[in-house]
Amino acid sequence: MSERVNVVDVTPRDGLQNEKEIVSTRDKLLLIEKLALAGIREIQATSFVHPRWVPQMADAEAVAVGIQRFSGIRFSALVPNLKGYERAIASGIRFLEFVIAVSDTFNHKNLNRSTAESLELLTQVTKLAQQDDVEIRVGFSTAFHCPFEGEISARAVVDLLRATRERSPWRIAICDTNGMAYPDQVTEVLVLAKSELKMPVTELALHFHDTYGRGLANTLAGLEGGVREFDSTTAGLGGCPYCPGASGNLATEDLVAFLDGMGYETGIDMEKLLDAAEFANGFTSRPYQGHLLLAKRAGACGVKQPKESQLA
Amino acid sequence: MSERVNVVDVTPRDGLQNEKEIVSTRDKLLLIEKLALAGIREIQATSFVHPRWVPQMADAEAVAVGIQRFSGIRFSALVPNLKGYERAIASGIRFLEFVIAVSDTFNHKNLNRSTAESLELLTQVTKLAQQDDVEIRVGFSTAFHCPFEGEISARAVVDLLRATRERSPWRIAICDTNGMAYPDQVTEVLVLAKSELKMPVTELALHFHDTYGRGLANTLAGLEGGVREFDSTTAGLGGCPYCPGASGNLATEDLVAFLDGMGYETGIDMEKLLDAAEFANGFTSRPYQGHLLLAKRAGACGVKQPKESQLA
Repeated sequence: MSERVNVVDVTPRDGLQNEKEIVSTRDKLLLIEKLALAGIREIQATSFVHPRWVPQMADAEAVAVGIQRFSGIRFSALVPNLKGYERAIASGIRFLEFVIAVSDTFNHKNLNRSTAESLELLTQVTKLAQQDDVEIRVGFSTAFHCPFEGEISARAVVDLLRATRERSPWRIAICDTNGMAYPDQVTEVLVLAKSELKMPVTELALHFHDTYGRGLANTLAGLEGGVREFDSTTAGLGGCPYCPGASGNLATEDLVAFLDGMGYETGIDMEKLLDAAEFANGFTSRPYQGHLLLAKRAGACGVKQPKESQLA
Repeated sequence: MSERVNVVDVTPRDGLQNEKEIVSTRDKLLLIEKLALAGIREIQATSFVHPRWVPQMADAEAVAVGIQRFSGIRFSALVPNLKGYERAIASGIRFLEFVIAVSDTFNHKNLNRSTAESLELLTQVTKLAQQDDVEIRVGFSTAFHCPFEGEISARAVVDLLRATRERSPWRIAICDTNGMAYPDQVTEVLVLAKSELKMPVTELALHFHDTYGRGLANTLAGLEGGVREFDSTTAGLGGCPYCPGASGNLATEDLVAFLDGMGYETGIDMEKLLDAAEFANGFTSRPYQGHLLLAKRAGACGVKQPKESQLA
């Protein structure tokens, strides 16, 4: 079962965007360096959003320059609109993340437009991207639950998958924005995507939060459904700005230990990843949101190399 | 899919046994009352172990008297040896938990005898139980990983299942003592138990810890394998005394929210359970080990009735 799984670390963007204390460009790049050393091969580096809305991302151009020193890593950046697209391209970004919410209410609150309007924008951005020879991954936020609309049906997700696929040929990330997803919802979306849209699951990624401790259970449902790409943040940074107290994204170190232990190949060095997690955890005043780092600090058994040590 | 799942709350025993600060008998009974009010129908109330080894359980007799006021609840107590068995029976306990480790090294450290000797003891205790018309659930500790021996094979678990079944006709709980289990291990044990031993999964229970965030992922594997009985502790109290820093058992509130959300019937009232969790959390000086209580305290979206509120 030594199948490859692509772990996409989204810490510098999703993990930091809600942190009040501004993290310096230097520290962001230091974190990225640590992630690169650990073997992470895809990183969401920043967001070209207006700094008035997300002050933490005001250094997007500087981060984009800084990451040029790393080779062999796919760096992406979030673009919320055409202006963001232009800034990203001008900064040399080759992989863009275009966000669209399944919940229309959430899309209005988060992006100030309807989901239908976001789809129109996607058509425009895709044409530009094809001209510019760059790639766009589309991220579906609130794909399982919306803080305003409640539960999101698999039907709504699949309809948006279809509409997106009509406009964009690239990967689509299905995101559980507030950690409320249940594994049976994940399974239902994947089953429908495969049966109705004949969509190869290799074109899908999953993005979970661990607010209710369901991050790895949802990951398991994704793996069982054939998905091999998962987003996470080092030290479990991040959260949903519309959900007070909602804790962070699924921690990269918890995800990697989980995948390693089940025999999936991630290419990631756990010791080095925990070093990155310890560093990233310094960016927040919240308690640590993941698991592995706590266990490691306390010297709990079998933490360093979960599967290896078991063979000793 | 409205299948019934039996949630066994083991807080008063497993959750408290490692807490240094002694919890009063009165507070233990108050917690049990809150759990009863929340709709929990099976509770592991205490342990008839020598108070020199586990001072927290020195009031086992007093707890056993106190629980007689609650009706409709199956109360069990752990018995490590014949002396414990006699004390439990004399105190009116009708459901006993007999612990045996799959790892021989762990059995020596924890119970001062070999796994083979424990099996002999089980033969004796089962005969007594049949005479006394009481029931014994056998709990397998270190069924997936041992802090001393490393990974435990499904083969070893299934061999012990066979040996146990030859001696005891009742339920068997398969326990991940230090939180190191992976879902594929859970699946493997269940597949082997069914195929080799023709064992109905209704005779099995699962007991997980959340040290590495895998508690619910392992629960999902158990559900998929047909298991409908799970142990947990309110507020995620507990842990493994041989694993420094290893955090607690899977939190009952996280487990119940997970089961509720996927349409399983637990008969448990989430609001009242969170009241019990808030109370139980006062027994420890450690940070809260579960998820739901944190989210509720912070007013995160959709916490109170995860699935119901989604329909609003």
